Amino acid sequence: MKVKLRVTVMKKPGVLDPEGKAIGRALAHLGFAGVEEVRAGKVIELDLDAESEAAAEAAAREMAERLLANGVIERFRIERLAA
Amino acid sequence: MKVKLRVTVMKKPGVLDPEGKAIGRALAHLGFAGVEEVRAGKVIELDLDAESEAAAEAAAREMAERLLANGVIERFRIERLAA
Repeated sequence: MKVKLRVTVMKKPGVLDPEGKAIGRALAHLGFAGVEEVRAGKVIELDLDAESEAAAEAAAREMAERLLANGVIERFRIERLAA
Repeated sequence: MKVKLRVTVMKKPGVLDPEGKAIGRALAHLGFAGVEEVRAGKVIELDLDAESEAAAEAAAREMAERLLANGVIERFRIERLAA
């Protein structure tokens, strides 16, 4: 079956996020008020052909641990997308 | 009020996504089967102080149009996050 998943990778809390900080400064420079914090990360959308939704999620978790995220400084979250 | 929003920026359909393609090749090289397509993008989480949720979403939309996304080749989506 076809399963669409989204893996979102963000810095772990406490890890410096220079890209988020740079975006925050750029937004302030453009005149946007009320921006209290900005965090930047990456998103990887996967179209998988798997035995089941559970198998697809398990595969995506392994992909994130082995390739998509750096477990030392990043955490990831996996969400199912509408097929 | 405090509003947390997530802006997800992806390449428009039809625009080349070399990062997604590279991830797909790397996953195949690692032995993952059943990966049919990979799309890579970025995600920006914003903590905003705004008059209302609608005002926060309007601000985030303007931020995306002016800074976060390149409207020529990228599309964006805004989601509310649990506060």
